Amino acid sequence: MSFRFRLEGTCPHSGARAGVFETPHGSIPTPAFMPVGTRGTVKGVLPGQLAELGATMILANTLHLHLRPGEETVAALGGLHRFMNWSGPILTDSGGYQVFSMAKLRSIDEEGVTFKSVVDGSAVRFTPERVIDIQATLAPDVMMAFDHCPSDPCDRDEVATATDRTHRWLQRCVRHWRERGGLATGTALFGIVQGGVFEDLRAASVDAVTQHELAGYAIGGVSVGEDREAMREAVSHAATRLPPDRPRYLMGVGTPLDFFDAVERGVDLFDCVTPTRHGRNHQVFTSRGRINLRSSALAHSTEPLDPLCPCPYLEGYSLGVLRHLCKSHEMLGAQLATLHNLHFFHDLLARIRRAIPLGELPALRREVLAACEGRYIPSESGKEA
Amino acid sequence: MSFRFRLEGTCPHSGARAGVFETPHGSIPTPAFMPVGTRGTVKGVLPGQLAELGATMILANTLHLHLRPGEETVAALGGLHRFMNWSGPILTDSGGYQVFSMAKLRSIDEEGVTFKSVVDGSAVRFTPERVIDIQATLAPDVMMAFDHCPSDPCDRDEVATATDRTHRWLQRCVRHWRERGGLATGTALFGIVQGGVFEDLRAASVDAVTQHELAGYAIGGVSVGEDREAMREAVSHAATRLPPDRPRYLMGVGTPLDFFDAVERGVDLFDCVTPTRHGRNHQVFTSRGRINLRSSALAHSTEPLDPLCPCPYLEGYSLGVLRHLCKSHEMLGAQLATLHNLHFFHDLLARIRRAIPLGELPALRREVLAACEGRYIPSESGKEA
Repeated sequence: MSFRFRLEGTCPHSGARAGVFETPHGSIPTPAFMPVGTRGTVKGVLPGQLAELGATMILANTLHLHLRPGEETVAALGGLHRFMNWSGPILTDSGGYQVFSMAKLRSIDEEGVTFKSVVDGSAVRFTPERVIDIQATLAPDVMMAFDHCPSDPCDRDEVATATDRTHRWLQRCVRHWRERGGLATGTALFGIVQGGVFEDLRAASVDAVTQHELAGYAIGGVSVGEDREAMREAVSHAATRLPPDRPRYLMGVGTPLDFFDAVERGVDLFDCVTPTRHGRNHQVFTSRGRINLRSSALAHSTEPLDPLCPCPYLEGYSLGVLRHLCKSHEMLGAQLATLHNLHFFHDLLARIRRAIPLGELPALRREVLAACEGRYIPSESGKEA
Repeated sequence: MSFRFRLEGTCPHSGARAGVFETPHGSIPTPAFMPVGTRGTVKGVLPGQLAELGATMILANTLHLHLRPGEETVAALGGLHRFMNWSGPILTDSGGYQVFSMAKLRSIDEEGVTFKSVVDGSAVRFTPERVIDIQATLAPDVMMAFDHCPSDPCDRDEVATATDRTHRWLQRCVRHWRERGGLATGTALFGIVQGGVFEDLRAASVDAVTQHELAGYAIGGVSVGEDREAMREAVSHAATRLPPDRPRYLMGVGTPLDFFDAVERGVDLFDCVTPTRHGRNHQVFTSRGRINLRSSALAHSTEPLDPLCPCPYLEGYSLGVLRHLCKSHEMLGAQLATLHNLHFFHDLLARIRRAIPLGELPALRREVLAACEGRYIPSESGKEA
């Protein structure tokens, strides 16, 4: 098969591992962060820039592409790789998270979900089989099973119901994916573990999901409102039980601290809108802390955005100029902040990967988090942000 | 002096010339197109991309930078070149065009103009001396004199009044620029010829403006509503009378046809928001004609945007994908269209420059204009645009 995960090193202090996930469109050194290309593009970033910034695998949203332009149009335009103009690996989510968290739900039943299109208001029906069909038509390297993501990971009854349904839907997803050709089509299917913050439900979910021999497994239902300690535990409950010879993908996470927490618990893959959405909102992650680029305190600063950031796109820009671009609503401000954040995330994951086999992960964690968590350069005016 | 214009070749069929305009920050092969960086950036384009696309000299708007962040802030951040992160030549306009065409005028008198700030509504006073001061603080390679641009180039009384005032204001601009150090400061001053569509007024304006020994001369008050033939004549009246050893800059122009018309009449420099504004509105110039990228006719097109365009940024993108990006309001659609249009403009000017000494300008004109003027790939729905 074209999909393989091999370990290259492990951490002597934690469950962290450095590996390589091989796909038909290329290999992903892990741990890795996948930028989110919601509607067929990582917002504001050219594919050549993504590669330059260190992206290997990128993500696209099944729900959004289904609604516009439709998977048949993507296929007619040559498939998702041509559509995103990205020759590297691509993963599509199943739409499960969006359907349950953002769409206006009409109804949910054992067969599937009906919700309202954000494009034209029409009723859209998603079932496990339909979601596999849509993703197969998009033709990514990895597709995700259709899961039921509970709205409150701490509500045991809701979580139990959603987790059981996720398992039944996974069975249908796997059957349908196999009927369509399975791995031979060039697209792997990942199953998703649910179970909220409950150890027994997470353990049972890992058991149910790993009944299916799949190329990788994801941890869902995390970072949906629970506190940080609960999130750490949920990840522990799932990740430590997942098979070591498969990549573990923590969906929708996160921030630098999250990466350390999850990597130490054996997670290999991440995706999140954080760097791009924060960038568009002029919030940047730097080695000195988070910065609000609209802060009036920066107006006359000739300092660089991050003295330790070798990102080629930010070279020559002072904080004062970036602040002007953001305050003036110039799209270049959002572009530069996005480019910087992506560089920061990819660079951080690359440093984490190098540190793991050397036993230097704890030291790197201390160094990075002491410098970069929490501190904002404050705005002089409460109105600025 | 650091400013020099030398001819490298002339056209045997017209007044067109190929030259080089030398400035302290580099040489500009002419004819050349200057992208407009209104508020300190060419909208949506990184400086490295501008250079890659073939830009040599870029333009910034004095009025906008004065209002935000203010010329003192630009100076505190290292001057305009650092501010725009552009090490090549920069020209600032004087704000004259914006003041008269766009700002809410409070009053105009012999001394200057008072208008309303678009940033905070406050009253702003521009006089010839103040405009020189602002531009000197910005510190571009070339600053423009403060002129009175008449609103209707065909209203003889208005044009005559504005043209005479432009001459008196030029005298004050030159005096003030000299008092501040003149060319020795590293910033040249260009005078602006007015005169509307009237040959005698244009001739008199050239006489008045060229009384001042300046590094270059501009033709203003063109492309402000007059028809194409009137515009051609206005350019002829001015350009053919300007000294041959100085660059001639046609302000605010234009389109591929305009370039041929003006270059044939001896114009060397252009600036216009056309490629960037059209790009943001998803309108692109191609060797096959202009295309509205939101047209539903393109939805399934796997063709490239322009088979003859070697622009590196568009490589791999089909018309169908570009249409999806534009229809989905993804900023990447505007970015790609802008990059393409700038490439198209710079490439066209480079081809014009090569054709001039070879006597091939008429043939190039026929070839380019037959293919690229006027034709749009139509939208299937009148609502699309």
